[in-house]
Amino acid sequence: MTYQNIETLSWIGDQHGWLRMIDQTLLPTELREIDCRQVETVWEAIKKLRVRGAPAIGIAAAYGVCIGLQTLPENADFDSFKTRLNEVGDYLASSRPTAVNLFWALNRMKAKAESCYELKNVAKIIDVLFSEAKAIHEEDRRICRLIGMFGQELFKDGDALLTHCNAGGLATADYGTALAVFFAATEKGKTIRVFADETRPLLQGARLTAWELMQRGIDVTLICDSMAAMVMKQGKINGVVVGADRIAANGDTANKIGTYSVAISAKVHGVPFYVAAPVSTFDLTLADGNGIPIEERDPEEICYGFGKRTAPEGVNVYNPAFDVTPAEFITGIITEHGIISPVNRENITKIVQS
Amino acid sequence: MTYQNIETLSWIGDQHGWLRMIDQTLLPTELREIDCRQVETVWEAIKKLRVRGAPAIGIAAAYGVCIGLQTLPENADFDSFKTRLNEVGDYLASSRPTAVNLFWALNRMKAKAESCYELKNVAKIIDVLFSEAKAIHEEDRRICRLIGMFGQELFKDGDALLTHCNAGGLATADYGTALAVFFAATEKGKTIRVFADETRPLLQGARLTAWELMQRGIDVTLICDSMAAMVMKQGKINGVVVGADRIAANGDTANKIGTYSVAISAKVHGVPFYVAAPVSTFDLTLADGNGIPIEERDPEEICYGFGKRTAPEGVNVYNPAFDVTPAEFITGIITEHGIISPVNRENITKIVQS
Repeated sequence: MTYQNIETLSWIGDQHGWLRMIDQTLLPTELREIDCRQVETVWEAIKKLRVRGAPAIGIAAAYGVCIGLQTLPENADFDSFKTRLNEVGDYLASSRPTAVNLFWALNRMKAKAESCYELKNVAKIIDVLFSEAKAIHEEDRRICRLIGMFGQELFKDGDALLTHCNAGGLATADYGTALAVFFAATEKGKTIRVFADETRPLLQGARLTAWELMQRGIDVTLICDSMAAMVMKQGKINGVVVGADRIAANGDTANKIGTYSVAISAKVHGVPFYVAAPVSTFDLTLADGNGIPIEERDPEEICYGFGKRTAPEGVNVYNPAFDVTPAEFITGIITEHGIISPVNRENITKIVQS
Repeated sequence: MTYQNIETLSWIGDQHGWLRMIDQTLLPTELREIDCRQVETVWEAIKKLRVRGAPAIGIAAAYGVCIGLQTLPENADFDSFKTRLNEVGDYLASSRPTAVNLFWALNRMKAKAESCYELKNVAKIIDVLFSEAKAIHEEDRRICRLIGMFGQELFKDGDALLTHCNAGGLATADYGTALAVFFAATEKGKTIRVFADETRPLLQGARLTAWELMQRGIDVTLICDSMAAMVMKQGKINGVVVGADRIAANGDTANKIGTYSVAISAKVHGVPFYVAAPVSTFDLTLADGNGIPIEERDPEEICYGFGKRTAPEGVNVYNPAFDVTPAEFITGIITEHGIISPVNRENITKIVQS
């Protein structure tokens, strides 16, 4: 089994089928898929980061709704359907608080269901929801290609680019957001070199980004997060591209913890800093980044991450999973509708609503 | 065995004795001492970071010279002595290139020997060198107390301070340099809170600093290196104090990789950034930080650090052990002769030569 012939997420069978996904916690030493036949398994997979990356979480949640509805008896009445739909939606929404694509996908599924309520036909609505989940999945594929196409224009042959965490094919339906830029540049015949931050505590950069880039034959060098500033000072980096988990109306961007630190270093060294994300990542209900909820995760991720205890028993730990990079540190946001630059409320509104 | 009743480094017996040290690679899960009875064991301990921290490396190297000379036959002639002394010095100097205290201690031992050459009495010179190694050890103890005393004046009751890597008792004879400031503040009755960067790849912050601070009852919170910027943005940090491995004549400071990134974040957030180091850390032969040699270490430290492979086989890795923070990012340098601030050539010369 190689990465080339399997998908991050795939639906097996018809609407009575199930969601299959790569268990990303096992990479890079083991490439194994798991089957989610119950909504609880989907929830656990999102919570435990077996599937991660804002767009991929959205797709998994949409399919999760379909799986959750499979428990309805064949002759379920409309009220039972509505109750179950809300139950499943609320449950999946409780898995991870920061990535807005999760809520976006769940809201989209709910809105789709509501648009069919007049039918009062449970089987038919379930049919429509299954098609909607598949549409979300397929749209993400197209969106990632568009992000790659727009983003690759920013860089030239010979550039060295830095990324943090994993915003690659594993984080999306396929092809990625930040990594799509690198893939598209390569497909255009440009030779680029990538520095990948390992991304503590869960090492998505070391485990996933380095692996994905190697699978696609792109020259990648792994560094610790704390080395990015030094590498920039050495003049080695021509640009930074990262993904996003939620972007406020003014452009403030929540992304994997450590992104803000990279953005500060980029600014100090005059290195352009780009965010690559689908428009579903924007949360225009939030005026700025202060309103973005930041997930705090288990201290054990820091103290006991690699099969061995590496911090004293009982130590206090602060483990936020995300940070917020203020808009003024962001050179541009690469979306499927084009590049937002400079990053401000007006330009964001224009692109998101285009 | 607790940390309170053992020493980072101790000499056992008379000049025919040996060097005992805490094996810092085993902390925090195991507190074990190892005995170095051969110069090769001292070299290996420095190379493998069983003993680390610039001042502690200097002390270990001074004792290492004494151990290396023990192989001389009792009736060795003066020429054999000189040959062996050079051999041992060159060998120990090859263990780690960045920490100047290593070379400082070896040069001091050599100069001491040379000052006795007129005696032409090998046994007598060996005696003198043993006393010199003990003097270096004892002086470091006093120096650390003075650094703590000067440094603690900078902070007030209730402050939260951040540190990177371990510049504590484990990195020195006792009490530390950066951590001495925290210990001295506490002894003055100030309640301080410390955020410790875990310090990838070898986690000296998680394994050593958190442990040392907990042993002394100081409130410490462990974070990943990439979280420091976020914590500063939240307004939680009143100051940063770190150690140093080599400081150039203009104040550019080599310290554990990641220090520069912290310094940039501190500057952007208006947080004062201090270096704490004995004057033996200054290398006035270097005009600025460009001349400081930077040790590159084994890629496996990043790919396979804690009993489990966490990066793809064959990935390129860049693993510099240190970075250089330019003087303009440093608010002050805390030495045993007082605090250098602003950090410039003139103020450095004044303090170092005082």
